[in-house]
Amino acid sequence: MAINVAILGFGTVGSGVAETLDINKDVICKRIGQEINVKYILDIRDFPESRFASLVTHDADEVFKSDIKIAVETIGGARIAYEYTKRALSSGISVVTSNKELVSTHGPELLEIAAANNCCYLFEAAVGGGIPIIRPLYKCLAANKITKIAGIVNGTTNYILSRMKDEGIDFDTALKQAQANGFAEANPSADIDGIDAQRKISILSTIANDGGYIAPDSISAEGISAITTEDMAFAASVGCDIKLIALYEASDKPIVYVAPALVDKSNLLYNVNGVFNAIMVDGNSLGQAMFYGQGAGTLPTASAVCGDVLEAAMGIPSEARAWSKESVEITPYDDIRADIVVRADVPAKVIGVADSYECEILSDEAVLVKGIRHKDIAALVSASEAISWMHYLK
Amino acid sequence: MAINVAILGFGTVGSGVAETLDINKDVICKRIGQEINVKYILDIRDFPESRFASLVTHDADEVFKSDIKIAVETIGGARIAYEYTKRALSSGISVVTSNKELVSTHGPELLEIAAANNCCYLFEAAVGGGIPIIRPLYKCLAANKITKIAGIVNGTTNYILSRMKDEGIDFDTALKQAQANGFAEANPSADIDGIDAQRKISILSTIANDGGYIAPDSISAEGISAITTEDMAFAASVGCDIKLIALYEASDKPIVYVAPALVDKSNLLYNVNGVFNAIMVDGNSLGQAMFYGQGAGTLPTASAVCGDVLEAAMGIPSEARAWSKESVEITPYDDIRADIVVRADVPAKVIGVADSYECEILSDEAVLVKGIRHKDIAALVSASEAISWMHYLK
Repeated sequence: MAINVAILGFGTVGSGVAETLDINKDVICKRIGQEINVKYILDIRDFPESRFASLVTHDADEVFKSDIKIAVETIGGARIAYEYTKRALSSGISVVTSNKELVSTHGPELLEIAAANNCCYLFEAAVGGGIPIIRPLYKCLAANKITKIAGIVNGTTNYILSRMKDEGIDFDTALKQAQANGFAEANPSADIDGIDAQRKISILSTIANDGGYIAPDSISAEGISAITTEDMAFAASVGCDIKLIALYEASDKPIVYVAPALVDKSNLLYNVNGVFNAIMVDGNSLGQAMFYGQGAGTLPTASAVCGDVLEAAMGIPSEARAWSKESVEITPYDDIRADIVVRADVPAKVIGVADSYECEILSDEAVLVKGIRHKDIAALVSASEAISWMHYLK
Repeated sequence: MAINVAILGFGTVGSGVAETLDINKDVICKRIGQEINVKYILDIRDFPESRFASLVTHDADEVFKSDIKIAVETIGGARIAYEYTKRALSSGISVVTSNKELVSTHGPELLEIAAANNCCYLFEAAVGGGIPIIRPLYKCLAANKITKIAGIVNGTTNYILSRMKDEGIDFDTALKQAQANGFAEANPSADIDGIDAQRKISILSTIANDGGYIAPDSISAEGISAITTEDMAFAASVGCDIKLIALYEASDKPIVYVAPALVDKSNLLYNVNGVFNAIMVDGNSLGQAMFYGQGAGTLPTASAVCGDVLEAAMGIPSEARAWSKESVEITPYDDIRADIVVRADVPAKVIGVADSYECEILSDEAVLVKGIRHKDIAALVSASEAISWMHYLK
């Protein structure tokens, strides 16, 4: 007996899901002992050129009242996607998604509805595209306390930063190239302002924090639009590269933020370039592991979505444990202690002012200052007549 | 109700499992809603100094006739471990292991016994230590055809090669240092001769090959003991580093072997140093992903074992699909086409002889020859009066 699936939203990811389920039909059927059949594609548009055109419907009722067991939500956003996801889960239809906005903003409620209706809400594809990260966190590292996550989780910004570095071009030019090459949206704000990364670290942090929900809007996020060619050259001069880093550290009040950082050459994240993503995870038993791969794109993301479809098809209970309804308290950004690199014409002045912190001279215009509170940075920069500062990741 | 577990073999990994289950008792209990209780430690030795001393027994009957639901097999080898694993699985006791020798040589039989007795045989820790790789392959990449795996799967050899590179020392000196630092066994043959890597790629290949079993003894394996300081310098001169690579490529007759290779600077594996492991996986939908982390060591390996213990405790059916009883036919090593770098005083001579292959000059003593059959390499080297050759990984 085939398992019927509906794809809600036939955009980039949705069409990749139809494609992947089709081209790998044979191995999938062999592996789970059942056929996965895409019965409906729900979209307001028609796709006369698509070989899946005959499956397209505009009638949501037809889909939700049918015998589908799984809905693939690849609509995006948190409006219609939210309504449809609630409707599916409430009817006992498992939902699989790549929608980080919806998972990060309504995850607690949607997971609760899924549990109450004995179905799954799975979102491996919501973070890191094709990279397996959600399930490894839940399953393989289940016996660990997750102490830290540091990741490059947004391919658009990483692509822009890589172009700026490799070609010496400025942010605006690199953004235009990214848009021309299909790696950035016409309205790039969600990516370049760190909002996409904020949503993804919200999801990862909540899992690492054992379901203690960390809402995206509680997380400080800084984007990359202020990064200059001068910053890139400075980074290179101290053996670093600038990456947009999403960070989580376990604590009574967890430490979570998104910010550009100087990543040292010795860190594996240094070599993660272009649209690739990578997520480093520290566990108290595991030590450190890194997960690397294509963080976006039609087929890589579809790969993760389809892995979840098979999981849901096999009727295995969701590994996503409940998330708390209320967002837990995290450490206020101002109170977070960070390692930063201060750029100054006279490094000695920085060390003079920062004498209560451990300092290290990195070059004749760069000082590493360890463990300074965010709220004390402005005063340090001002008092030492420094040029600029940036987070530092060894 | 607590779930009772026995640890069979209280060596490095076994003691790490006891430790991890103990220090993370609270999160584990919270996550799976049940307590995991180590009831027995079966070993022929006593451990009077251990805080787990009271759990030690020498009586296998006592263990197997008890109410344990899970046996952690951390004995190693394929003799007693094999007997105990069969005994446990036949009694419906799930077995979790880090024993790559046993899984790679008796996997087909043991998985069959587990399935027949409605219990699990899980071995996430058998490859890559703490790195999640087995479950991601089975689960997250379930909708992919796995086309290629290239991995650094042995920490001892990678440590030795890193020391040789960083300090300019020869193989014997580096091996002695590895032994002194606890990163190599007194009898290092299984590691340095590539046998450990052969077992691990046997397991990964069988999974990638959808359960078509690829026995370790069918896989050609070359170790690193013949690598010289001259080889290391040559590698650096062409922008490469020498790594012991375990390789799988999908094909009607799969391509599988273990050999040292020149890894180009542009490849992420280039930066995997010391005892770390990393495994690159290519899927037809996924594209490329890499899994990186500590490939050995007490706690990292225990992390993976304990992840499996929780999986078994939750009574989730094993994801390990059946493996074929007979080893499938793989491409004979002689017939495999490979990219190699030939070192010669006169590169033009190499190109002259290798005119039927695509060639590329890498330096004034190095030529990349693409797609040459292994059986034709000796003739090429001889006819072109070359000095040496090595596999090449871009």
